[in-house]
Amino acid sequence: MAESSRISGSGGVRADARRNRDHVLVAARAVFAERGIEAPMAAVARRAGVGVATLYRHFPTRDALVRGAFAQQMETCGRALTDALADPDPWRGFRRLVETVCGLQREERGFPAAFVAAFPDTAADHARSRERAERDLMTLVRRAQAAGALRADFHPSDLAVVLVAHCGLVTALPDDAAASRRLVAFLLQSFRADAADGPLPPPASLALRGFPMAAGRP
Amino acid sequence: MAESSRISGSGGVRADARRNRDHVLVAARAVFAERGIEAPMAAVARRAGVGVATLYRHFPTRDALVRGAFAQQMETCGRALTDALADPDPWRGFRRLVETVCGLQREERGFPAAFVAAFPDTAADHARSRERAERDLMTLVRRAQAAGALRADFHPSDLAVVLVAHCGLVTALPDDAAASRRLVAFLLQSFRADAADGPLPPPASLALRGFPMAAGRP
Repeated sequence: MAESSRISGSGGVRADARRNRDHVLVAARAVFAERGIEAPMAAVARRAGVGVATLYRHFPTRDALVRGAFAQQMETCGRALTDALADPDPWRGFRRLVETVCGLQREERGFPAAFVAAFPDTAADHARSRERAERDLMTLVRRAQAAGALRADFHPSDLAVVLVAHCGLVTALPDDAAASRRLVAFLLQSFRADAADGPLPPPASLALRGFPMAAGRP
Repeated sequence: MAESSRISGSGGVRADARRNRDHVLVAARAVFAERGIEAPMAAVARRAGVGVATLYRHFPTRDALVRGAFAQQMETCGRALTDALADPDPWRGFRRLVETVCGLQREERGFPAAFVAAFPDTAADHARSRERAERDLMTLVRRAQAAGALRADFHPSDLAVVLVAHCGLVTALPDDAAASRRLVAFLLQSFRADAADGPLPPPASLALRGFPMAAGRP
Protein backbone atom coordinates (compact mmCIF):
# COMPACT_ATOMS: atom_id res chain seq x y z
CA MET A 1 0.00 0.00 0.00
CA ALA A 2 2.74 2.48 0.96
CA GLU A 3 4.39 1.46 -2.30
CA SER A 4 1.40 2.19 -4.48
CA SER A 5 0.71 5.49 -2.68
CA ARG A 6 4.18 6.63 -3.54
CA ILE A 7 3.93 5.81 -7.22
CA SER A 8 0.39 7.06 -7.84
CA GLY A 9 -0.90 10.62 -7.95
CA SER A 10 -3.40 12.09 -5.52
CA GLY A 11 -6.25 10.32 -7.39
CA GLY A 12 -4.37 7.08 -6.77
CA VAL A 13 -4.08 7.88 -3.08
CA ARG A 14 -7.81 8.42 -2.87
CA ALA A 15 -8.42 5.16 -4.76
CA ASP A 16 -6.07 3.42 -2.33
CA ALA A 17 -7.96 4.86 0.61
CA ARG A 18 -11.25 3.64 -0.83
CA ARG A 19 -9.79 0.22 -1.46
CA ASN A 20 -8.46 0.05 2.08
CA ARG A 21 -11.81 1.10 3.45
CA ASP A 22 -13.55 -1.63 1.45
CA HIS A 23 -11.02 -4.23 2.57
CA VAL A 24 -11.61 -3.18 6.16
CA LEU A 25 -15.39 -3.51 5.82
CA VAL A 26 -15.18 -6.97 4.23
CA ALA A 27 -12.71 -8.05 6.91
CA ALA A 28 -14.88 -6.57 9.67
CA ARG A 29 -17.95 -8.54 8.52
CA ALA A 30 -15.90 -11.75 8.44
CA VAL A 31 -14.30 -11.17 11.84
CA PHE A 32 -17.59 -10.07 13.47
CA ALA A 33 -19.29 -13.16 12.07
CA GLU A 34 -16.63 -15.43 13.53
CA ARG A 35 -15.85 -13.72 16.82
CA GLY A 36 -18.70 -11.32 17.49
CA ILE A 37 -18.61 -7.54 17.37
CA GLU A 38 -16.42 -7.48 20.48
CA ALA A 39 -13.51 -8.86 18.45
CA PRO A 40 -10.33 -6.76 18.79
CA MET A 41 -9.97 -3.95 16.24
CA ALA A 42 -6.45 -5.28 15.64
CA ALA A 43 -7.93 -8.58 14.40
CA VAL A 44 -9.95 -6.68 11.80
CA ALA A 45 -6.87 -4.71 10.69
CA ARG A 46 -4.85 -7.91 10.44
CA ARG A 47 -7.52 -9.63 8.36
CA ALA A 48 -7.80 -6.59 6.08
CA GLY A 49 -4.04 -6.44 5.64
CA VAL A 50 -3.84 -2.82 6.85
CA GLY A 51 -2.20 -1.24 9.85
CA VAL A 52 -4.19 -0.45 12.97
CA ALA A 53 -3.55 3.27 12.38
CA THR A 54 -5.15 3.00 8.93
CA LEU A 55 -8.15 1.21 10.41
CA TYR A 56 -8.66 3.93 13.01
CA ARG A 57 -8.25 6.65 10.40
CA HIS A 58 -11.26 5.24 8.55
CA PHE A 59 -13.24 4.17 11.61
CA PRO A 60 -12.28 6.03 14.78
CA THR A 61 -14.55 3.88 16.99
CA ARG A 62 -15.83 0.33 17.06
CA ASP A 63 -19.33 1.71 16.79
CA ALA A 64 -18.41 3.45 13.51
CA LEU A 65 -16.85 0.25 12.21
CA VAL A 66 -19.89 -1.87 13.08
CA ARG A 67 -22.22 0.64 11.46
CA GLY A 68 -20.00 0.82 8.38
CA ALA A 69 -19.80 -2.95 8.09
CA PHE A 70 -23.56 -3.37 8.15
CA ALA A 71 -24.64 -0.10 6.52
CA GLN A 72 -26.29 -1.89 3.63
CA GLN A 73 -28.22 -4.28 5.86
CA MET A 74 -29.29 -1.38 8.05
CA GLU A 75 -30.55 0.42 5.01
CA THR A 76 -32.48 -2.67 3.95
CA CYS A 77 -34.05 -2.83 7.42
CA GLY A 78 -34.97 0.83 7.30
CA ARG A 79 -36.53 0.38 3.88
CA ALA A 80 -38.40 -2.71 5.01
CA LEU A 81 -39.97 -0.69 7.81
CA THR A 82 -40.96 2.09 5.41
CA ASP A 83 -42.40 -0.46 2.97
CA ALA A 84 -44.25 -2.26 5.74
CA LEU A 85 -45.95 0.96 6.81
CA ALA A 86 -46.82 1.76 3.19
CA ASP A 87 -48.41 -1.64 2.57
CA PRO A 88 -52.18 -1.24 2.26
CA ASP A 89 -52.59 -4.66 3.93
CA PRO A 90 -51.52 -4.13 7.56
CA TRP A 91 -50.92 -7.81 8.23
CA ARG A 92 -48.88 -8.32 5.06
CA GLY A 93 -46.77 -5.29 5.98
CA PHE A 94 -46.14 -6.66 9.45
CA ARG A 95 -45.37 -10.16 8.19
CA ARG A 96 -42.98 -8.93 5.52
CA LEU A 97 -41.06 -6.82 7.99
CA VAL A 98 -40.51 -9.82 10.28
CA GLU A 99 -39.53 -12.00 7.33
CA THR A 100 -37.13 -9.42 5.87
CA VAL A 101 -35.30 -8.76 9.11
CA CYS A 102 -35.07 -12.45 9.95
CA GLY A 103 -33.85 -13.10 6.40
CA LEU A 104 -31.05 -10.62 6.97
CA GLN A 105 -30.20 -12.24 10.28
CA ARG A 106 -30.00 -15.56 8.46
CA GLU A 107 -27.94 -14.42 5.50
CA GLU A 108 -25.36 -12.21 7.19
CA ARG A 109 -23.91 -13.99 10.14
CA GLY A 110 -22.32 -11.02 11.85
CA PHE A 111 -25.44 -8.92 11.51
CA PRO A 112 -27.63 -10.43 14.22
CA ALA A 113 -25.02 -10.11 16.94
CA ALA A 114 -24.23 -6.60 15.79
CA PHE A 115 -27.75 -5.43 16.49
CA VAL A 116 -28.95 -7.63 19.23
CA ALA A 117 -25.98 -6.30 21.14
CA ALA A 118 -27.05 -2.94 22.48
CA PHE A 119 -25.64 0.01 20.60
CA PRO A 120 -23.79 2.76 22.44
CA ASP A 121 -26.11 5.63 23.15
CA THR A 122 -23.62 8.43 22.75
CA ALA A 123 -24.48 9.74 19.31
CA ALA A 124 -27.57 11.94 19.28
CA ASP A 125 -28.45 10.92 15.73
CA HIS A 126 -28.60 7.34 16.96
CA ALA A 127 -31.13 8.26 19.58
CA ARG A 128 -33.22 10.20 17.09
CA SER A 129 -33.31 7.50 14.42
CA ARG A 130 -34.02 4.89 17.08
CA GLU A 131 -36.94 6.89 18.43
CA ARG A 132 -38.37 7.25 14.95
CA ALA A 133 -37.97 3.53 14.28
CA GLU A 134 -39.66 2.66 17.57
CA ARG A 135 -42.54 4.98 16.75
CA ASP A 136 -42.91 3.41 13.29
CA LEU A 137 -42.87 -0.08 14.75
CA MET A 138 -45.57 0.85 17.24
CA THR A 139 -47.66 2.22 14.39
CA LEU A 140 -47.15 -0.97 12.40
CA VAL A 141 -48.22 -3.15 15.33
CA ARG A 142 -51.26 -1.05 16.22
CA ARG A 143 -52.41 -0.85 12.63
CA ALA A 144 -52.28 -4.64 12.22
CA GLN A 145 -54.15 -5.04 15.52
CA ALA A 146 -56.77 -2.46 14.54
CA ALA A 147 -57.34 -4.47 11.34
CA GLY A 148 -58.09 -7.53 13.46
CA ALA A 149 -55.21 -9.44 11.88
CA LEU A 150 -52.59 -9.28 14.63
CA ARG A 151 -53.64 -10.66 17.99
CA ALA A 152 -54.66 -7.99 20.47
CA ASP A 153 -52.32 -9.30 23.15
CA PHE A 154 -49.27 -8.96 20.90
CA HIS A 155 -46.87 -6.53 22.56
CA PRO A 156 -44.22 -4.55 20.67
CA SER A 157 -41.56 -6.18 22.86
CA ASP A 158 -42.55 -9.48 21.24
CA LEU A 159 -40.75 -8.27 18.12
CA ALA A 160 -37.56 -8.19 20.16
CA VAL A 161 -38.34 -11.68 21.53
CA VAL A 162 -38.62 -12.98 17.95
CA LEU A 163 -35.40 -11.35 16.84
CA VAL A 164 -33.33 -12.43 19.81
CA ALA A 165 -34.58 -16.03 19.59
CA HIS A 166 -34.11 -16.13 15.84
CA CYS A 167 -30.65 -14.64 16.22
CA GLY A 168 -29.80 -17.45 18.63
CA LEU A 169 -31.07 -20.03 16.15
CA VAL A 170 -29.12 -18.73 13.14
CA THR A 171 -26.00 -18.26 15.24
CA ALA A 172 -26.18 -21.86 16.49
CA LEU A 173 -27.18 -23.27 13.08
CA PRO A 174 -25.74 -20.90 10.48
CA ASP A 175 -26.29 -23.35 7.63
CA ASP A 176 -29.82 -24.38 8.44
CA ALA A 177 -32.09 -21.98 6.56
CA ALA A 178 -34.97 -24.45 6.90
CA ALA A 179 -34.89 -24.21 10.71
CA SER A 180 -34.91 -20.42 10.50
CA ARG A 181 -37.85 -20.32 8.07
CA ARG A 182 -39.75 -22.82 10.13
CA LEU A 183 -39.35 -20.80 13.35
CA VAL A 184 -40.45 -17.60 11.63
CA ALA A 185 -43.49 -19.31 10.09
CA PHE A 186 -44.58 -20.80 13.42
CA LEU A 187 -44.26 -17.47 15.18
CA LEU A 188 -46.09 -15.54 12.48
CA GLN A 189 -48.95 -18.04 12.55
CA SER A 190 -49.07 -17.68 16.31
CA PHE A 191 -49.29 -13.90 15.99
CA ARG A 192 -52.48 -14.12 13.90
CA ALA A 193 -55.51 -12.93 15.82
CA ASP A 194 -57.38 -16.16 15.01
CA ALA A 195 -54.57 -18.30 16.48
CA ALA A 196 -54.96 -16.76 19.94
CA ASP A 197 -55.57 -19.66 22.27
CA GLY A 198 -55.91 -18.66 25.87
CA PRO A 199 -54.04 -15.95 27.75
CA LEU A 200 -50.31 -15.38 27.24
CA PRO A 201 -47.84 -14.83 30.06
CA PRO A 202 -47.07 -11.12 30.57
CA PRO A 203 -44.88 -9.45 27.94
CA ALA A 204 -41.15 -9.04 28.41
CA SER A 205 -39.74 -5.72 29.48
CA LEU A 206 -37.47 -5.67 26.46
CA ALA A 207 -37.11 -2.30 24.83
CA LEU A 208 -37.06 -2.09 21.08
CA ARG A 209 -33.64 -0.48 21.23
CA GLY A 210 -31.90 -3.68 20.24
CA PHE A 211 -34.13 -3.87 17.19
CA PRO A 212 -32.07 -3.71 13.98
CA MET A 213 -33.61 -0.77 12.27
CA ALA A 214 -33.79 1.16 15.48
CA ALA A 215 -30.09 1.91 15.40
CA GLY A 216 -29.08 2.79 11.91
CA ARG A 217 -31.77 4.45 9.85
CA PRO A 218 -30.32 7.34 7.93
CA MET B 1 -7.08 -30.25 51.18
CA ALA B 2 -3.78 -32.16 51.41
CA GLU B 3 -3.64 -30.98 55.00
CA SER B 4 -7.05 -32.27 55.98
CA SER B 5 -6.40 -35.59 54.21
CA ARG B 6 -3.35 -36.09 56.34
CA ILE B 7 -5.04 -35.41 59.63
CA SER B 8 -8.29 -37.33 59.00
CA GLY B 9 -8.84 -41.07 58.88
CA SER B 10 -9.98 -42.97 55.78
CA GLY B 11 -13.60 -41.87 56.39
CA GLY B 12 -12.28 -38.31 56.34
CA VAL B 13 -10.47 -38.96 53.08
CA ARG B 14 -13.67 -40.19 51.50
CA ALA B 15 -15.56 -37.20 52.86
CA ASP B 16 -12.85 -34.95 51.43
CA ALA B 17 -13.15 -36.63 48.06
CA ARG B 18 -16.91 -36.14 48.08
CA ARG B 19 -16.51 -32.52 49.07
CA ASN B 20 -13.97 -32.00 46.30
CA ARG B 21 -16.27 -33.65 43.81
CA ASP B 22 -19.14 -31.38 44.88
CA HIS B 23 -16.92 -28.31 44.66
CA VAL B 24 -15.87 -29.33 41.18
CA LEU B 25 -19.48 -29.76 40.05
CA VAL B 26 -20.57 -26.38 41.44
CA ALA B 27 -17.51 -24.76 39.84
CA ALA B 28 -18.14 -26.54 36.54
CA ARG B 29 -21.72 -25.26 36.36
CA ALA B 30 -20.52 -21.72 37.05
CA VAL B 31 -17.67 -21.87 34.54
CA PHE B 32 -19.80 -23.53 31.84
CA ALA B 33 -22.47 -20.88 32.34
CA GLU B 34 -19.93 -18.10 31.89
CA ARG B 35 -17.67 -19.50 29.22
CA GLY B 36 -19.54 -22.40 27.63
CA ILE B 37 -18.77 -26.08 27.95
CA GLU B 38 -15.60 -25.62 25.92
CA ALA B 39 -14.01 -23.77 28.85
CA PRO B 40 -10.60 -25.20 29.85
CA MET B 41 -10.71 -27.95 32.46
CA ALA B 42 -8.02 -25.97 34.30
CA ALA B 43 -10.44 -23.07 34.72
CA VAL B 44 -12.90 -25.42 36.45
CA ALA B 45 -10.16 -26.77 38.71
CA ARG B 46 -9.05 -23.25 39.60
CA ARG B 47 -12.58 -22.15 40.42
CA ALA B 48 -13.12 -25.26 42.55
CA GLY B 49 -9.87 -24.69 44.41
CA VAL B 50 -8.54 -28.15 43.55
CA GLY B 51 -5.61 -29.29 41.47
CA VAL B 52 -6.06 -30.34 37.85
CA ALA B 53 -5.00 -33.89 38.83
CA THR B 54 -7.81 -34.04 41.37
CA LEU B 55 -10.29 -32.82 38.78
CA TYR B 56 -9.23 -35.53 36.31
CA ARG B 57 -9.35 -38.18 39.03
CA HIS B 58 -13.04 -37.43 39.52
CA PHE B 59 -13.87 -36.68 35.88
CA PRO B 60 -11.42 -38.21 33.40
CA THR B 61 -13.04 -36.48 30.38
CA ARG B 62 -14.84 -33.24 29.67
CA ASP B 63 -17.86 -35.29 28.66
CA ALA B 64 -17.94 -36.93 32.10
CA LEU B 65 -17.64 -33.52 33.76
CA VAL B 66 -20.48 -32.02 31.70
CA ARG B 67 -22.69 -34.99 32.44
CA GLY B 68 -21.82 -34.83 36.12
CA ALA B 69 -22.48 -31.10 36.30
CA PHE B 70 -25.95 -31.44 34.81
CA ALA B 71 -26.89 -34.89 36.05
CA GLN B 72 -29.82 -33.58 38.01
CA GLN B 73 -31.18 -31.56 35.10
CA MET B 74 -30.75 -34.56 32.81
CA GLU B 75 -32.69 -36.67 35.23
CA THR B 76 -35.45 -34.05 35.34
CA CYS B 77 -35.58 -34.08 31.53
CA GLY B 78 -35.74 -37.84 31.42
CA ARG B 79 -38.51 -37.85 34.02
CA ALA B 80 -40.39 -35.14 32.13
CA LEU B 81 -40.36 -37.32 29.03
CA THR B 82 -41.61 -40.33 30.99
CA ASP B 83 -44.33 -38.22 32.62
CA ALA B 84 -45.31 -36.73 29.27
CA LEU B 85 -45.81 -40.18 27.78
CA ALA B 86 -47.80 -41.27 30.83
CA ASP B 87 -50.13 -38.26 30.68
CA PRO B 88 -53.60 -39.42 29.58
CA ASP B 89 -54.01 -36.09 27.73
CA PRO B 90 -51.58 -36.27 24.79
CA TRP B 91 -51.49 -32.49 24.26
CA ARG B 92 -50.94 -31.73 27.93
CA GLY B 93 -48.10 -34.24 27.97
CA PHE B 94 -46.50 -32.65 24.94
CA ARG B 95 -46.95 -29.11 26.27
CA ARG B 96 -45.55 -29.95 29.69
CA LEU B 97 -42.47 -31.53 28.20
CA VAL B 98 -41.70 -28.40 26.16
CA GLU B 99 -42.35 -26.17 29.17
CA THR B 100 -40.24 -28.29 31.52
CA VAL B 101 -37.23 -28.46 29.24
CA CYS B 102 -37.43 -24.76 28.41
CA GLY B 103 -37.80 -24.01 32.11
CA LEU B 104 -34.56 -25.87 32.76
CA GLN B 105 -32.86 -23.99 29.93
CA ARG B 106 -34.02 -20.77 31.56
CA GLU B 107 -33.06 -21.61 35.12
CA GLU B 108 -29.66 -23.19 34.61
CA ARG B 109 -27.56 -21.04 32.35
CA GLY B 110 -24.90 -23.59 31.52
CA PHE B 111 -27.43 -26.26 30.73
CA PRO B 112 -28.68 -25.12 27.32
CA ALA B 113 -25.23 -24.83 25.80
CA ALA B 114 -24.26 -28.15 27.31
CA PHE B 115 -26.95 -29.97 25.36
CA VAL B 116 -27.42 -27.95 22.28
CA ALA B 117 -23.75 -28.61 21.71
CA ALA B 118 -23.55 -32.08 20.23
CA PHE B 119 -22.43 -34.75 22.63
CA PRO B 120 -19.53 -37.01 21.76
CA ASP B 121 -20.82 -40.24 20.31
CA THR B 122 -18.18 -42.52 21.70
CA ALA B 123 -19.96 -44.12 24.62
CA ALA B 124 -22.34 -46.88 23.58
CA ASP B 125 -24.68 -46.17 26.48
CA HIS B 126 -25.05 -42.64 25.16
CA ALA B 127 -26.16 -43.92 21.79
CA ARG B 128 -28.61 -46.31 23.40
CA SER B 129 -30.22 -43.78 25.72
CA ARG B 130 -30.38 -41.28 22.88
CA GLU B 131 -32.15 -43.74 20.63
CA ARG B 132 -34.65 -44.52 23.33
CA ALA B 133 -35.28 -40.82 23.95
CA GLU B 134 -35.74 -40.18 20.24
CA ARG B 135 -38.20 -43.06 20.02
CA ASP B 136 -40.13 -41.72 23.03
CA LEU B 137 -40.25 -38.23 21.55
CA MET B 138 -41.58 -39.58 18.27
CA THR B 139 -44.27 -41.44 20.18
CA LEU B 140 -45.18 -38.29 22.08
CA VAL B 141 -45.50 -36.27 18.88
CA ARG B 142 -47.49 -38.90 16.99
CA ARG B 143 -49.82 -39.47 19.91
CA ALA B 144 -50.62 -35.74 20.18
CA GLN B 145 -51.16 -35.60 16.41
CA ALA B 146 -53.40 -38.67 16.44
CA ALA B 147 -55.51 -36.95 19.11
CA GLY B 148 -55.98 -34.00 16.74
CA ALA B 149 -54.35 -31.62 19.20
CA LEU B 150 -50.91 -31.15 17.65
CA ARG B 151 -50.87 -29.88 14.08
CA ALA B 152 -50.34 -32.60 11.51
CA ASP B 153 -47.46 -30.75 9.84
CA PHE B 154 -45.48 -30.57 13.09
CA HIS B 155 -42.21 -32.40 12.53
CA PRO B 156 -40.13 -33.90 15.35
CA SER B 157 -37.23 -31.68 14.26
CA ASP B 158 -39.39 -28.71 15.27
CA LEU B 159 -38.69 -29.67 18.88
CA ALA B 160 -35.02 -29.03 18.19
CA VAL B 161 -35.89 -25.72 16.49
CA VAL B 162 -37.74 -24.64 19.64
CA LEU B 163 -34.93 -25.64 21.95
CA VAL B 164 -32.15 -24.06 19.93
CA ALA B 165 -34.07 -20.79 19.51
CA HIS B 166 -35.08 -20.74 23.17
CA CYS B 167 -31.51 -21.51 24.15
CA GLY B 168 -30.38 -18.49 22.14
CA LEU B 169 -32.97 -16.32 23.86
CA VAL B 170 -32.08 -17.33 27.43
CA THR B 171 -28.38 -17.08 26.68
CA ALA B 172 -28.78 -13.54 25.32
CA LEU B 173 -31.26 -12.49 28.03
CA PRO B 174 -30.44 -14.62 31.08
CA ASP B 175 -32.49 -12.44 33.42
CA ASP B 176 -35.61 -12.09 31.31
CA ALA B 177 -37.88 -14.96 32.30
CA ALA B 178 -40.84 -13.10 30.80
CA ALA B 179 -39.30 -13.19 27.31
CA SER B 180 -38.65 -16.90 27.64
CA ARG B 181 -42.20 -17.68 28.81
CA ARG B 182 -43.65 -15.53 26.08
CA LEU B 183 -41.68 -17.30 23.33
CA VAL B 184 -42.69 -20.72 24.64
CA ALA B 185 -46.35 -19.70 24.86
CA PHE B 186 -46.38 -18.33 21.30
CA LEU B 187 -44.77 -21.46 19.93
CA LEU B 188 -47.08 -23.81 21.81
CA GLN B 189 -50.13 -21.93 20.58
CA SER B 190 -48.75 -22.17 17.06
CA PHE B 191 -48.33 -25.92 17.43
CA ARG B 192 -52.04 -26.42 18.18
CA ALA B 193 -53.83 -28.10 15.31
CA ASP B 194 -56.45 -25.34 15.22
CA ALA B 195 -53.78 -22.63 14.81
CA ALA B 196 -52.55 -24.09 11.51
CA ASP B 197 -52.81 -21.27 9.02
CA GLY B 198 -51.54 -22.18 5.60
CA PRO B 199 -48.61 -24.40 4.69
CA LEU B 200 -45.33 -24.23 6.58
CA PRO B 201 -41.92 -24.16 4.92
CA PRO B 202 -40.29 -27.62 4.85
CA PRO B 203 -38.98 -28.95 8.18
CA ALA B 204 -35.34 -28.58 9.16
CA SER B 205 -33.00 -31.51 8.83
CA LEU B 206 -32.08 -31.22 12.50
CA ALA B 207 -31.71 -34.53 14.25
CA LEU B 208 -33.01 -34.88 17.75
CA ARG B 209 -29.54 -35.82 18.96
CA GLY B 210 -28.97 -32.37 20.41
CA PHE B 211 -32.15 -32.76 22.37
CA PRO B 212 -31.48 -32.62 26.14
CA MET B 213 -32.93 -35.86 27.26
CA ALA B 214 -31.47 -37.63 24.26
CA ALA B 215 -28.01 -37.61 25.74
CA GLY B 216 -28.17 -38.44 29.37
CA ARG B 217 -31.03 -40.66 30.37
CA PRO B 218 -29.82 -43.34 32.72
